[in-house]
Amino acid sequence: MPRGSREFVSPETVGLLVDLYELTMAQCYFREGKNEPATFDLFVRALPPQRAFLLNAGLETVLDYLEGLRFGPEALDYLRSLGLFDEEFLDYLRRFRFHGHVRALPEGEVFFPPEPVLQVTAPRIEAQIVETFLLNQVNFQVMVASKAARVVLAAQGRPVVDFSPRRDHGTDAALKAARSSYLAGCVGTSNVLAGMVYGIPVYGTMAHSYVMSFDSELEAFRAYARHFPDQCVLLIDTYDTLEGARLAAQVADELRASGHRLRAVRIDSGDLLELSRQVRRILDQAGHPEVQILASGDLNEYRIAELVAAKAPIDSFGVGTEMGTSYDAPALGGVYKLVEDQAGYRIKRSTGKVTLPGRKQVWRVFRDGVLYEDVITLADEPGPPGAEPLLVEVMVDGVRSVRESLAEARERARGRLWSLPDHLRDLKDGSYTVRLGPRLEALFHRMASA
Amino acid sequence: MPRGSREFVSPETVGLLVDLYELTMAQCYFREGKNEPATFDLFVRALPPQRAFLLNAGLETVLDYLEGLRFGPEALDYLRSLGLFDEEFLDYLRRFRFHGHVRALPEGEVFFPPEPVLQVTAPRIEAQIVETFLLNQVNFQVMVASKAARVVLAAQGRPVVDFSPRRDHGTDAALKAARSSYLAGCVGTSNVLAGMVYGIPVYGTMAHSYVMSFDSELEAFRAYARHFPDQCVLLIDTYDTLEGARLAAQVADELRASGHRLRAVRIDSGDLLELSRQVRRILDQAGHPEVQILASGDLNEYRIAELVAAKAPIDSFGVGTEMGTSYDAPALGGVYKLVEDQAGYRIKRSTGKVTLPGRKQVWRVFRDGVLYEDVITLADEPGPPGAEPLLVEVMVDGVRSVRESLAEARERARGRLWSLPDHLRDLKDGSYTVRLGPRLEALFHRMASA
Repeated sequence: MPRGSREFVSPETVGLLVDLYELTMAQCYFREGKNEPATFDLFVRALPPQRAFLLNAGLETVLDYLEGLRFGPEALDYLRSLGLFDEEFLDYLRRFRFHGHVRALPEGEVFFPPEPVLQVTAPRIEAQIVETFLLNQVNFQVMVASKAARVVLAAQGRPVVDFSPRRDHGTDAALKAARSSYLAGCVGTSNVLAGMVYGIPVYGTMAHSYVMSFDSELEAFRAYARHFPDQCVLLIDTYDTLEGARLAAQVADELRASGHRLRAVRIDSGDLLELSRQVRRILDQAGHPEVQILASGDLNEYRIAELVAAKAPIDSFGVGTEMGTSYDAPALGGVYKLVEDQAGYRIKRSTGKVTLPGRKQVWRVFRDGVLYEDVITLADEPGPPGAEPLLVEVMVDGVRSVRESLAEARERARGRLWSLPDHLRDLKDGSYTVRLGPRLEALFHRMASA
Repeated sequence: MPRGSREFVSPETVGLLVDLYELTMAQCYFREGKNEPATFDLFVRALPPQRAFLLNAGLETVLDYLEGLRFGPEALDYLRSLGLFDEEFLDYLRRFRFHGHVRALPEGEVFFPPEPVLQVTAPRIEAQIVETFLLNQVNFQVMVASKAARVVLAAQGRPVVDFSPRRDHGTDAALKAARSSYLAGCVGTSNVLAGMVYGIPVYGTMAHSYVMSFDSELEAFRAYARHFPDQCVLLIDTYDTLEGARLAAQVADELRASGHRLRAVRIDSGDLLELSRQVRRILDQAGHPEVQILASGDLNEYRIAELVAAKAPIDSFGVGTEMGTSYDAPALGGVYKLVEDQAGYRIKRSTGKVTLPGRKQVWRVFRDGVLYEDVITLADEPGPPGAEPLLVEVMVDGVRSVRESLAEARERARGRLWSLPDHLRDLKDGSYTVRLGPRLEALFHRMASA
């Protein structure tokens, strides 16, 4: 194994990606014989700032993890070295398999706090041990999918590409940011590994250092056009954007003469509205209306909305930092809470951190094809007439019961984003009604005031 | 291989964690025979908001990556499938090894924009291909180390533990957040995998769901005390914090009677100042001044500074979300730019994105043991008399020339944070002089105005 490879989280080591307390609590449950079934909800208490809805993502990762979760010899040796765990418990971990049931919102579904995203029913130890990983993945993937949905909505049909790997928080974030943003409607990513792993289309242009590596900008452009005559996108702002546009038009002439077509130019700095207008004029006057303009550089949904509103002649956007890190809301406060066990409904009453008891269902009411309101009920409580139940069974006894392609989830996201009411789809804070069903509401008030 | 395991980035696939353009540019260089040595600087243009200094981290990850970088059969097959690359270039990738020289700031060193953090001199293709990964890792690790340094400074000697895994951006972020925050002075992490991989001390208490899993809070506390009589930290805010404190005192009595000691109680919600005072009083009046108080719950450097200033009787802090995501500055704008090649010095002049040409050295001037100013010079330009050069050679011909333990880097960080002037160590924006040496300054002005 290469040096440093332990820094790569693997299927053999991911079981240790837990907060220590998951395992110390587990040993208590083990010794106390408290391993009867328990149900945990994964949910978000409140919308982050500047978000009117959330888009679900991460379920595939969660189900793969639950099916594959094991504790290998290296993990067990390390745990033994901590002096906290006894051999009986370590032997339990050695034989560990996840046998639980999982109900979940499908990926690409729009949802609102405090609706449960995932509901895990399993022997208590199994349900507890998976907490850290589930939160780590769902929090991040939902956060980026929700941010990307805003970017995609702002672009109003213009293609958006994920350019975020260099600013994402590490390697896993780069992979999952590419997937989550594609799920939300981006057309692809610059991340080649995400292309391989998820089958996402990959896109690329050139860097300023490429242009600087030649004696002249024209020479740099011509070399690229020579080697990629049908996939050529020229970065024109290394020295002077308008001069770059004129040189690009010259290369477009040369490509056309040899039966090819310059696809686009990219502007990565400066006043994108003004520059895109001037560049469009230069390209058009040179007889190249077919050459598109790609804009990038510190973009977010607000800047894109401004450019679109001002009718900037920009055909597509590359968005990196702000989308891949959900810059204006870089953490989602999803939590994972016990809601029911063999002793009945459970509730937490800590200040500001109250939970809803019991296994649940989430119902969605549409009016004229548009989201109208959601209702959270107990699992065995009827929903409003005609409402659509959103939580579906996805795992039974530790085995997945559904399998969905990324394309299907992406199609769901597209449909759901279209069916958002206007006040949620624009980029302001919106509000949406999430009610409790009568039985859940009565139970909650009884328990919260007990 | 288990299903889903491709989602785990591995030493075999990490080579594809590149923006596509790195590889298309590389093929251009390959075909044009432009693979002569070139030098790239990795640097940050400006301090993020609310930061007065940056703390270096990520070099170990970078050097391990550079030594191990390969393109395996699966990667090459995928690249072939894109229809962009020819067999000669794919064969070049098959044989790829990084042969470059690297100079760098050591981990744990304090630095300021626009000082180079890393300087890579290598055949152009090798230097180019590594860009995405280097930025992905250095940006994140520096960002978290710099945030954690602020948290550690605010705590004024009280231990701080990383509690961030559930809010970090994926698995790699969770590992690197634990390492970077430990490097910056945290005493450990809740992340068991980081404990195994890096040898970082691991800490844990219990969750609210644990307390809720028993018929009574007292029963939950007693069970934990029974199974971990010497490592018992009780979470007391599940129902009512003061009642929880009284029950904890009772368990402390029982532990004492059997020759053990309750280590601490944890408060995770509510008014931490007021609650910590009342809890301290309850514990003291029950004869347990030895039981410590650990506070957690949405903490950051500002809240910790307030609690410390108000003399809250809190002995240690658990900090999660805000530290692990660098919540108030969740992306660092590090860039990687060509500065020199065989044609001489190189410069980029895009609006707002100017670079400093040439290979460089960074010199630090101390006065009375305190940082006074830094000077960036050309590599062969003398520094100020008595100044300390900060960039050191860390890799020669693709082989590491230094190896440093995490403990050594952590000790450097401790020393450097101590030698910061007061106006940088408090939590406001500070300013610090970074000058250019006369030769670099003259060269820059000549090239920038050309």
